Amino acid sequence: MALRTPDEYLDSLRNQHPEVFARGQKVESVVDHPMFSSTISCWGTWVFRAAHDPELSATMVASPDLNGEQSHVFWHMATNPDDLMQNLWAARLLSERSPLSGYASIGRDELQSLLMATHDLDRERGTDYNARVVEYVKRFQREQILTAAAVTDVKGDRSRRPAEQDDPDLYLHVVDRSQDGIVVRGCKAHTSGSVVSNELVVIPTRAMREDDSDYAVAFAIPVDTPGLKLVCRGFSGEDANEFEAPISSHDDLMESLTIFDDVFVPWERVFLCGEWEYAGAIANNFANVNRQGYLGADVGKLRLYIGAAQLVAELNGVAQVPHIRDKITEMIRLERSVWACGVTASIESTRHASGYQIPDPVLTNAGKNVCMEGHYLAARHLLEIAGGSPMTAPYVEDIFHPELQPYIEKYYRGADPDGAIERLRVMKLIRDLVASEYGGYWYTEIIHGSGSPAAEKIQMYREHDLDYCRQLAQDALQGRAAVEGRLEPSASV
Amino acid sequence: MALRTPDEYLDSLRNQHPEVFARGQKVESVVDHPMFSSTISCWGTWVFRAAHDPELSATMVASPDLNGEQSHVFWHMATNPDDLMQNLWAARLLSERSPLSGYASIGRDELQSLLMATHDLDRERGTDYNARVVEYVKRFQREQILTAAAVTDVKGDRSRRPAEQDDPDLYLHVVDRSQDGIVVRGCKAHTSGSVVSNELVVIPTRAMREDDSDYAVAFAIPVDTPGLKLVCRGFSGEDANEFEAPISSHDDLMESLTIFDDVFVPWERVFLCGEWEYAGAIANNFANVNRQGYLGADVGKLRLYIGAAQLVAELNGVAQVPHIRDKITEMIRLERSVWACGVTASIESTRHASGYQIPDPVLTNAGKNVCMEGHYLAARHLLEIAGGSPMTAPYVEDIFHPELQPYIEKYYRGADPDGAIERLRVMKLIRDLVASEYGGYWYTEIIHGSGSPAAEKIQMYREHDLDYCRQLAQDALQGRAAVEGRLEPSASV
Amino acid sequence: MALRTPDEYLDSLRNQHPEVFARGQKVESVVDHPMFSSTISCWGTWVFRAAHDPELSATMVASPDLNGEQSHVFWHMATNPDDLMQNLWAARLLSERSPLSGYASIGRDELQSLLMATHDLDRERGTDYNARVVEYVKRFQREQILTAAAVTDVKGDRSRRPAEQDDPDLYLHVVDRSQDGIVVRGCKAHTSGSVVSNELVVIPTRAMREDDSDYAVAFAIPVDTPGLKLVCRGFSGEDANEFEAPISSHDDLMESLTIFDDVFVPWERVFLCGEWEYAGAIANNFANVNRQGYLGADVGKLRLYIGAAQLVAELNGVAQVPHIRDKITEMIRLERSVWACGVTASIESTRHASGYQIPDPVLTNAGKNVCMEGHYLAARHLLEIAGGSPMTAPYVEDIFHPELQPYIEKYYRGADPDGAIERLRVMKLIRDLVASEYGGYWYTEIIHGSGSPAAEKIQMYREHDLDYCRQLAQDALQGRAAVEGRLEPSASV
Amino acid sequence: MALRTPDEYLDSLRNQHPEVFARGQKVESVVDHPMFSSTISCWGTWVFRAAHDPELSATMVASPDLNGEQSHVFWHMATNPDDLMQNLWAARLLSERSPLSGYASIGRDELQSLLMATHDLDRERGTDYNARVVEYVKRFQREQILTAAAVTDVKGDRSRRPAEQDDPDLYLHVVDRSQDGIVVRGCKAHTSGSVVSNELVVIPTRAMREDDSDYAVAFAIPVDTPGLKLVCRGFSGEDANEFEAPISSHDDLMESLTIFDDVFVPWERVFLCGEWEYAGAIANNFANVNRQGYLGADVGKLRLYIGAAQLVAELNGVAQVPHIRDKITEMIRLERSVWACGVTASIESTRHASGYQIPDPVLTNAGKNVCMEGHYLAARHLLEIAGGSPMTAPYVEDIFHPELQPYIEKYYRGADPDGAIERLRVMKLIRDLVASEYGGYWYTEIIHGSGSPAAEKIQMYREHDLDYCRQLAQDALQGRAAVEGRLEPSASV
Repeated sequence: MALRTPDEYLDSLRNQHPEVFARGQKVESVVDHPMFSSTISCWGTWVFRAAHDPELSATMVASPDLNGEQSHVFWHMATNPDDLMQNLWAARLLSERSPLSGYASIGRDELQSLLMATHDLDRERGTDYNARVVEYVKRFQREQILTAAAVTDVKGDRSRRPAEQDDPDLYLHVVDRSQDGIVVRGCKAHTSGSVVSNELVVIPTRAMREDDSDYAVAFAIPVDTPGLKLVCRGFSGEDANEFEAPISSHDDLMESLTIFDDVFVPWERVFLCGEWEYAGAIANNFANVNRQGYLGADVGKLRLYIGAAQLVAELNGVAQVPHIRDKITEMIRLERSVWACGVTASIESTRHASGYQIPDPVLTNAGKNVCMEGHYLAARHLLEIAGGSPMTAPYVEDIFHPELQPYIEKYYRGADPDGAIERLRVMKLIRDLVASEYGGYWYTEIIHGSGSPAAEKIQMYREHDLDYCRQLAQDALQGRAAVEGRLEPSASV
Repeated sequence: MALRTPDEYLDSLRNQHPEVFARGQKVESVVDHPMFSSTISCWGTWVFRAAHDPELSATMVASPDLNGEQSHVFWHMATNPDDLMQNLWAARLLSERSPLSGYASIGRDELQSLLMATHDLDRERGTDYNARVVEYVKRFQREQILTAAAVTDVKGDRSRRPAEQDDPDLYLHVVDRSQDGIVVRGCKAHTSGSVVSNELVVIPTRAMREDDSDYAVAFAIPVDTPGLKLVCRGFSGEDANEFEAPISSHDDLMESLTIFDDVFVPWERVFLCGEWEYAGAIANNFANVNRQGYLGADVGKLRLYIGAAQLVAELNGVAQVPHIRDKITEMIRLERSVWACGVTASIESTRHASGYQIPDPVLTNAGKNVCMEGHYLAARHLLEIAGGSPMTAPYVEDIFHPELQPYIEKYYRGADPDGAIERLRVMKLIRDLVASEYGGYWYTEIIHGSGSPAAEKIQMYREHDLDYCRQLAQDALQGRAAVEGRLEPSASV
Repeated sequence: MALRTPDEYLDSLRNQHPEVFARGQKVESVVDHPMFSSTISCWGTWVFRAAHDPELSATMVASPDLNGEQSHVFWHMATNPDDLMQNLWAARLLSERSPLSGYASIGRDELQSLLMATHDLDRERGTDYNARVVEYVKRFQREQILTAAAVTDVKGDRSRRPAEQDDPDLYLHVVDRSQDGIVVRGCKAHTSGSVVSNELVVIPTRAMREDDSDYAVAFAIPVDTPGLKLVCRGFSGEDANEFEAPISSHDDLMESLTIFDDVFVPWERVFLCGEWEYAGAIANNFANVNRQGYLGADVGKLRLYIGAAQLVAELNGVAQVPHIRDKITEMIRLERSVWACGVTASIESTRHASGYQIPDPVLTNAGKNVCMEGHYLAARHLLEIAGGSPMTAPYVEDIFHPELQPYIEKYYRGADPDGAIERLRVMKLIRDLVASEYGGYWYTEIIHGSGSPAAEKIQMYREHDLDYCRQLAQDALQGRAAVEGRLEPSASV
Repeated sequence: MALRTPDEYLDSLRNQHPEVFARGQKVESVVDHPMFSSTISCWGTWVFRAAHDPELSATMVASPDLNGEQSHVFWHMATNPDDLMQNLWAARLLSERSPLSGYASIGRDELQSLLMATHDLDRERGTDYNARVVEYVKRFQREQILTAAAVTDVKGDRSRRPAEQDDPDLYLHVVDRSQDGIVVRGCKAHTSGSVVSNELVVIPTRAMREDDSDYAVAFAIPVDTPGLKLVCRGFSGEDANEFEAPISSHDDLMESLTIFDDVFVPWERVFLCGEWEYAGAIANNFANVNRQGYLGADVGKLRLYIGAAQLVAELNGVAQVPHIRDKITEMIRLERSVWACGVTASIESTRHASGYQIPDPVLTNAGKNVCMEGHYLAARHLLEIAGGSPMTAPYVEDIFHPELQPYIEKYYRGADPDGAIERLRVMKLIRDLVASEYGGYWYTEIIHGSGSPAAEKIQMYREHDLDYCRQLAQDALQGRAAVEGRLEPSASV
């Protein structure tokens, strides 16, 4: 099949009828409801259009997919470091224009994790999950089905595991099995992009124990599967004005509480059902693959911030002030550090027995951690460089009010006598990025997106070669012997 | 006069008819327009009510004022360290309930700076400004006139001083003088609270040189003085819902671009006119006094954050998790550091020849700087502790939608089976504080409010006793002599 | 008795004959051994001389002590905020000249904690410990006995409490009781200044449980009590040259491993013996009182660093470079933040039932934590401002080598043609402070001195008024009601 | 020629007779003087031995060099990304054992910069410098001549350029030219490793202007060239004990003040003489190449720190304590961030017209900056995890004193009853690394080694693609057009 077009994508949405709630209403058509337009643009039409853009297509098109054909890079499964690098670049380029669009590969990331885990599972247990995943991925790639990731359960009491909750539904679980398929019940939180997606890919959120086996379940279903309810939350408002909100008027990522009210899944779409020992690997590998792309996306976003900082500094006439340059330089250092983690995680990746490529987990997690701390610093620097105007500049209606516009043009100029309107545009851009409701989304996303900092730290500690490092220290205890080739074997500690 | 009541304040607003623009409309009555209600509550009714509140009045009422009577503490001028401490406590208590209300004393802070500067000016020049300021302050205190501070000019090209701009109006200046008064033209940016205030107090934004003397002008005028136009910007929206926005539905601080289109000011309200040598002192002392109260307000806000962090940790069932406790502890450390700077700046204050008390400038600026960096860290910790739900929790209309509410109550519980609604309330509180448009205001305010970090650093460097410190180092060069009482005088460097 | 003189102190040392080991030798006389001279100067002669110095005596002499007479401030027990402020100033002034001397009050801090705890203990148990402590303190004050604090046990397996260790001696404990006194066995680590002190004050290192009761023991003994062995460690070397080491040639703090090999303590010197419930309070209150003085000492040290930074910047000709000024300003901000915590902990202190004053524990711990992080930043800034010369400047013997001195004077000048030697002195000062073995002591001391950061955090979390903060958040959930006086009582969480 | 052996290197030192001053003495033979042994081991015998070590030789041997033969990797010039990666690995592996040895390639880095600059220079000016450099490099590689870098001039008044100084010798300059060669006068500071090197490679320290042309000079000379005086400074002491100082007893880097007292250089060793336009490129490219290797070395050092932290945590019995794991994880994150910058700077390097490979300058400088900040954090964490014992543990002579050893073994154990001596060894290792005179060297080196942080920031700002970033921001001002392919060309700012 050819590369999917934005229009084909919109048609596919119109052909689906999910049960979507927003602001107390059931939504008939997300395509026609203004509340969803920014998310549709961000995760949908922009992502698909980019593969047709002459300047971007070299990065956006990958091949061969499992059908032996070319596909959109965000539907491609990495089998070598170059694939990971292409993915990193794609996420970066998409996010330079639409910061949240770099996360649109999340369903692909789950499927790559499932391809790896089911490979091991089938080999160890004689099951046939992998063939089902492969079959699903072929269609996923051929049609470039837009998928959302339903991962995080609502969890109830966070100090108890799934089977220990007093309400068994606080983690998604299998409540019935038949010849045709399974029935699941529960609820996933924080399902980004579900309402503009065609399908959901559902995986476990954590490692499990034997008595949690009913909770070890993975599958893919269309968003309009009966019993599924999506309760939405968006950020950019229904009437985002392009002057006031130059980014968020086309960049948003609706979230949903995703309720599975006894949803039936046919066996050919079931990718894990009861094999609790594999839940942890699926969750971890997904996070790891996902964080690799996250780094590319973050670099795109940071480059936009750096550009805005430099631009506003020039318009304010302070681009040469030392502390302004220092702050921009610090933003550059952060952006480059994130990029370096992304590149090195790709280069120093390893190949799984299934043939798929796993980015280095310490580096993806280190990078994600830098993203998080760096976002707050970059936002602060951007606001400091801009001054108070992102916050206090008048509403667009007043800027262009006939009685006021002459005053605005007179008084909002910076160094350039005719620069008032451009300067106001930049102030609005900065407000939109880091001092708006959309900005509020980012302050949260950068922490919890693709997993929490606490989870990242656990991964880093666990995956680093501490044994090698400890041995270096033990060898050092022997003094000069360590550099004179006379080391005696250390007793283990 | 008795302490002003909220109703008296509202009546006073109704009796004024400023030229206010918002969203492309001239506003007839700010009291009756929903867009202004949060600001009116924050800076107005809450501040006045607090002085009548049995639990708060001991802190909120100060005496004697210049009329020899008691007044609201935010209308009181400090003449000793205890006054400064009372002001700090007042700002803190007000902000604990309504974070932005702690800044409502800003007009008082300008007037205190004017009382000091005109005292010196009159003594040195034989002018009679001080008597005018005193007369104004007496009425200000007696009636508890709510005033906004018009300080920051629009500035045009930031690399040029006022007289160097190619448009002379880019800093506010005197364009005419007559027997009755002066006429001023120009434009002030970032005038917080102007639309809910009774009057504006206007002072220079910076130190000036001789050719800037027309720009050295200070005065006070009612907000409905002819020629004055207020172009507004607010943050919490017109229809803020108390469930969605428990704080910003009553806590906002409308900003304005404040245009002076040939505004007449009678001489009895003119507090500086041409004496350019005093512009810097007025601006600096204002900033210094103002930053002292800022610290109290920031502590109030941070205590609310700490409480929200602790509460959500308990509801999530993770209050005993070490990294959660660490983060709350770091928030405590920040809050206490800000408080300590505020207290010590008050205790180690100095008395100006006019009899008014000046907080220690290094400590107020150090504290303000900690506020700024601390805000970003505290916000991040609060969001990390809360998890993703501040961002993704459904709209209030869906939470209480009859079809959805049972699911919401089932799935949003934490450790407590019946705790879903309270937990959602807390998530909304946290979103409102640090991940909303109102939160966006804060990320900017904490940097630029009461002056920029760059200005704070200049003050700290300039005001610290570097000579004493350098002498310590020079004495240390003499080795043991420094502790044996044998120091020889160092040559100066 | 009059204020003790340095000579009286030295005589007292000569009259004692502790069992001191250093570099494999038993030391006959610490006064006459060059290894101890810096410590004797720092904790001893300088501290005593300061009380006789005309410029310092107003701060250094306090009264009345328990004998109703005046004494050295470091032997004075605080009974009000002013006493605490005097202590803070004294620690600061001493440390400005000799950074480690500000810690010389540590034995006094233990005794103040014992005065408080035994007051409660006697009242609750009918014991008579307090009278013994009072009697001891009277002599301590009258004679200004220099005491070291033996607090931290060697601890063995850190995951077990005292009674759980497989060797019972890993915490100091009572092994025999008789009519005359007790016999103790065990070992304390990190006993600062013991070898130049007259006596040791020994207290428990932590809270205990019932089966630890033999470990709940406190007392004071002369350093030459039979069975006591002090195994020393110093930092500044035996032959510190004043040019190379202008500070550490008179500022050092020898540490000891302090072995109690069945040491007898007569009952009149026993201040706790078995009452395990009081061990925690003694340890905590000691830490709290001690950290208050720590803050003053740290400010003294930081002021010396700031002076050195400013001085070297001027000599290098870069005092006006923006990033240099920024770094000095950051050092100022840190110093002022520590000072503010110290002042506010003193002002907001509380009075114990025994009449002694307890500094605010959240503020002392917050301040100590800032000291620690600030030290590393201040050291880094100081070294960055200085350039590489602290590290690479020649040895003093080469600087004044006849053949080399002309080259040195030619090539080490900065802006001043004749400034080479002074510039080299400053480089040596900076090296001594932060890039030497003595500097290495500081990098450790600032973390572990007066307790670890982890302990500080526990105290801050435990002592902060989290209930009040949580209530603020709960009230905020009610929206406008919180500022309109309509709050309904919250259900507790 | 075969790979140089440690013995061949030592022989070469014995055959040279440089004029070396240390502690007021002229040194006859550095090989036989104990003060130099650690530096000789670190930069010399260890570096050469590593190429013969079976486990390391694959990394340590590179080919082909300019003679078409294999050589030590630190004598190899990179012509592609793989060469840079090999260099990075080599620096890391060497530094894992001997942290300062990873910098031993510094002379090679200067020569690579000269190879590039003289290529351009000859092409543009018709000179023949490049052939001289090539000829020198061939011998340099064939014999594996150990070279030190003389770069930083003493500089005098830092606010003036070379020709503006009132003493013309404050930057190294040509004072005579003859048919045979040139005569130079001046003085370089901070020449690391000069006394254990065979030759010095001398380049300009900064960009120059036309009137500075006599200062634009580069060349290579043996360390015993007449007129050259090396005034030394070392750190680890002459008698470093392997128990007390397990690292610094074989890891030191003597620095020298390097005086050129009218030193003659024959033309075949002169690589720049007067062409001031090339001075900046030589200095910058050297710094850039050098910083790439610096990153590898820093990773080696950080891995040793991480190992020491993990080891001491285990011996103390606290390896599972959350805040301990957090700190080790933060060290891991730092180490991986530095590594990622090094790898990515190598992968994203560019090829100079001369055929040599230039690492990405933004990434090398970003990485170096992270090294610097990270060092202070890693050192602090290491000391916090270890506790106070690195500072207070007894001298080795007391540990093994017959009377004391039983006490030491009893009381210094941690969790392991027999672990006292190993635990003490680790404490000594940690003290040696970060709390000793050697540690003091590191606190300075990490700031100023390979150029100052201020210089790094200038490079990052200058080399980043700010134009691209600014364009992103300008495109974003157009709103949805940016993702819909409808961008209009922005007016330039």
